[in-house]
Amino acid sequence: MTDAPTIDPRDPEEGARLFDPDEPWVSLREALEADDPQRLAAIFEELSLSDGLRALLQLEAEERTSVLAALPPELAAELITEAPNEQAVDLVEHMEAGDAADIIEELDSDIQADVVGELDKDDADAILAEMEPEEAAEVLRLAEYDDDTAGGLMIGETFSFPNTDTVGAVIRRLTSEDEDFERYRGQHPYIIDEEGRLIGVVSLRNLLTAKRSTALPDIMVVPMSVTTDTPLEDIQDLLDEHEFLGLPVIDSEGKLVGTVSRSAISDALLERSESESLRRQGVFGDELRSMPLILRSRRRLAWLSANIILNVIAASVISVYEETIAAVIAIAIFLPMVSDMSGCSGNQSVAVSLRELALGLTKPVDVFRVWAKEVSVGVINGVVLGILIGIVAWIWKGNAFLGLVIGLALAINTVIAVSIGGVVPLLLKRFNQDPAVASGPLLTTITDVAGFFLVLSLATLMMPLLV
Amino acid sequence: MTDAPTIDPRDPEEGARLFDPDEPWVSLREALEADDPQRLAAIFEELSLSDGLRALLQLEAEERTSVLAALPPELAAELITEAPNEQAVDLVEHMEAGDAADIIEELDSDIQADVVGELDKDDADAILAEMEPEEAAEVLRLAEYDDDTAGGLMIGETFSFPNTDTVGAVIRRLTSEDEDFERYRGQHPYIIDEEGRLIGVVSLRNLLTAKRSTALPDIMVVPMSVTTDTPLEDIQDLLDEHEFLGLPVIDSEGKLVGTVSRSAISDALLERSESESLRRQGVFGDELRSMPLILRSRRRLAWLSANIILNVIAASVISVYEETIAAVIAIAIFLPMVSDMSGCSGNQSVAVSLRELALGLTKPVDVFRVWAKEVSVGVINGVVLGILIGIVAWIWKGNAFLGLVIGLALAINTVIAVSIGGVVPLLLKRFNQDPAVASGPLLTTITDVAGFFLVLSLATLMMPLLV
Repeated sequence: MTDAPTIDPRDPEEGARLFDPDEPWVSLREALEADDPQRLAAIFEELSLSDGLRALLQLEAEERTSVLAALPPELAAELITEAPNEQAVDLVEHMEAGDAADIIEELDSDIQADVVGELDKDDADAILAEMEPEEAAEVLRLAEYDDDTAGGLMIGETFSFPNTDTVGAVIRRLTSEDEDFERYRGQHPYIIDEEGRLIGVVSLRNLLTAKRSTALPDIMVVPMSVTTDTPLEDIQDLLDEHEFLGLPVIDSEGKLVGTVSRSAISDALLERSESESLRRQGVFGDELRSMPLILRSRRRLAWLSANIILNVIAASVISVYEETIAAVIAIAIFLPMVSDMSGCSGNQSVAVSLRELALGLTKPVDVFRVWAKEVSVGVINGVVLGILIGIVAWIWKGNAFLGLVIGLALAINTVIAVSIGGVVPLLLKRFNQDPAVASGPLLTTITDVAGFFLVLSLATLMMPLLV
Repeated sequence: MTDAPTIDPRDPEEGARLFDPDEPWVSLREALEADDPQRLAAIFEELSLSDGLRALLQLEAEERTSVLAALPPELAAELITEAPNEQAVDLVEHMEAGDAADIIEELDSDIQADVVGELDKDDADAILAEMEPEEAAEVLRLAEYDDDTAGGLMIGETFSFPNTDTVGAVIRRLTSEDEDFERYRGQHPYIIDEEGRLIGVVSLRNLLTAKRSTALPDIMVVPMSVTTDTPLEDIQDLLDEHEFLGLPVIDSEGKLVGTVSRSAISDALLERSESESLRRQGVFGDELRSMPLILRSRRRLAWLSANIILNVIAASVISVYEETIAAVIAIAIFLPMVSDMSGCSGNQSVAVSLRELALGLTKPVDVFRVWAKEVSVGVINGVVLGILIGIVAWIWKGNAFLGLVIGLALAINTVIAVSIGGVVPLLLKRFNQDPAVASGPLLTTITDVAGFFLVLSLATLMMPLLV
């Protein structure tokens, strides 16, 4: 919270002159056509980052490239940082290597690594060749780590001092004008030995009270740290338990290689949660509407085509009972209702399981406990819904036995759907499948097959009473 | 990152002696029955916070209350903090007011306000009566603000100094042993005038370089701040644009009333995203399996019962065409397929819109732009899926015209589903409805009605060719 600007960047009067807030891209396009980079920059300065990104993404792909190239690299870097990762990569890879390199140099080192790590090798090499060799090497080093580990989430910058330094050295660096202290994101000073191994941390309190001549090892304490391969969940657990703003990251030899901040962890968790929410509906690659039409279509189709096969399996149950339907046409009305209603009941259980898995409150070993808990809900809801739909069917078609068939089928199928729905995500997780992707289609197929079978076999049994 | 502990709290060997990591609640129950609070505390000390909460929630409701009352209040407060808000309230409201007050006094002030704000008035009053009057008044003050505003997200503690103080006063407080500096979560020192109005902030750099006798107004800068009613999204925008660890919060008179931290904002966004993900499947109140069975059942049923009505509307379309089904029984097989497939296609568009709304990349004014973009995807996917399902129907039932009817119906209905699916969340948002709750059921009803109508009316038209 240092050196804060004093102007509200979202002054509505100021904004009204430069662009229409509903369609700011119209003004962007005009400035681009007028070859007026200053006006372009002025428009983005007035917009909030998310509004700026919204405006940028409403432009055509070539226009976006031209706008980014015309902006000051720091401003372009802020827009790239605001964009979801896949969109950021798409923006960068369409630029000239030189322009892209200027922008990438302005990104925080964790974002640099995310973007460069996702680029085609040729694109990445071309951009890295345009960068300072030292910085390019640093980007390559960070890009090697897995996304959801401390290595993938850390920034390479560490606020560190050799164990031969004194308090005075720390204060000199903190107060020097040569260094942008903000990029350390509130780290405390870390102390390293001659091999670069992390051996201590100095608290702000000790820094303020010690004499300038005090050797750092005399006031340091042993810090808590994580290794480059520590997974996101474990870092989250540590930060839940301790009020740290971040943690130092060490490699397998104990060398200090970076720091991972609390905000990077929160952001990664939020991204994961939103990405999972998309995958549950069969949308992959964090789709945004600004991505190419063919890519969006193809990704959605891949999942839908697989769904056709599951639908054919379910429908084949109906096919077996065509004679029953021919005898009691009204059954055809209730088949989709029973399958839809049980699907919804089951998906409620899936949602609760996915959330409890994410919170760590349920683990794959809890399969039977979850099943038992969901059966109770399934029985209550099955009875209530079965009675409701049974009465609807009875009144609608004037046949109490039809009501009985439909109601009983929905009641039983609700118990099946709710109990299996709670368990499916745990089983998928145990077998290392993504529960967000597979739970829904798997559950729906099971409840469709069971629902169609229950309605049609009960109807067949009670046929004399139904016609 | 101060005074870090040096011991890894999750030593597996140590843990193995105290409890079974798969079922730690068995040991909790034993310790509870043996009336051994020290062993209880020891077990929780060994568990990570999420594992500790998981264990606690596996116990019966009365056991949970006894365990929390037996633990040291700081430890119980950590577990309450880890729990989602509704579960936290449930845990607290079952305790004796005195025990609850001890724990609530240990919570951060933003969590205190969240929990107390959700309690029944009687429970809240009983607990507040057991607290220090000053602290109780503070909790009540914070509980009044809306959850998703700066007031609801802030902590009441501010690291503030009168404008008559010097640098020396700040350093004395920073280094005094009487105050827990961690609770300020890395705030910089704020300067207030005699009326309590926020007038400045001092950077760490200035603090370290200025003489102790320097008056604070001489080195302060004007801080960026938010007001108590600034919404979550706006705070997020500000933090996206500036590398602050948090922001001071002022009331309508400019008085400094609290600070909102970056981590509180990230946590609120994550909670909102996960809560929305549950509501999309018709699960309300952030259900956990540890909540009472009847409550879980009732909440899920409320949504499912409304769903029955929508299903009856859709099914009534089938009812109109019973004669067509009687003539071509095979139609009954494909009705659920067409409605399910188009529902899935539409829900993909819904998911993308919900995410773009959350990211601020789409706004309600974009209805026609979104519609146009989705129609393109819908046409491509409709043609592909229509051809696929048409071939399936043709081969399966040996009638090319049946394939044509089913394929054409699915193709048209996919365009409808995809384009409407993209637009529905925007329209709901414009009319201040929760798009996460209503989009799915609304879309499914539209695509069911349209799908049934398309299949059955096309089949009726082409009847001579189908039988």
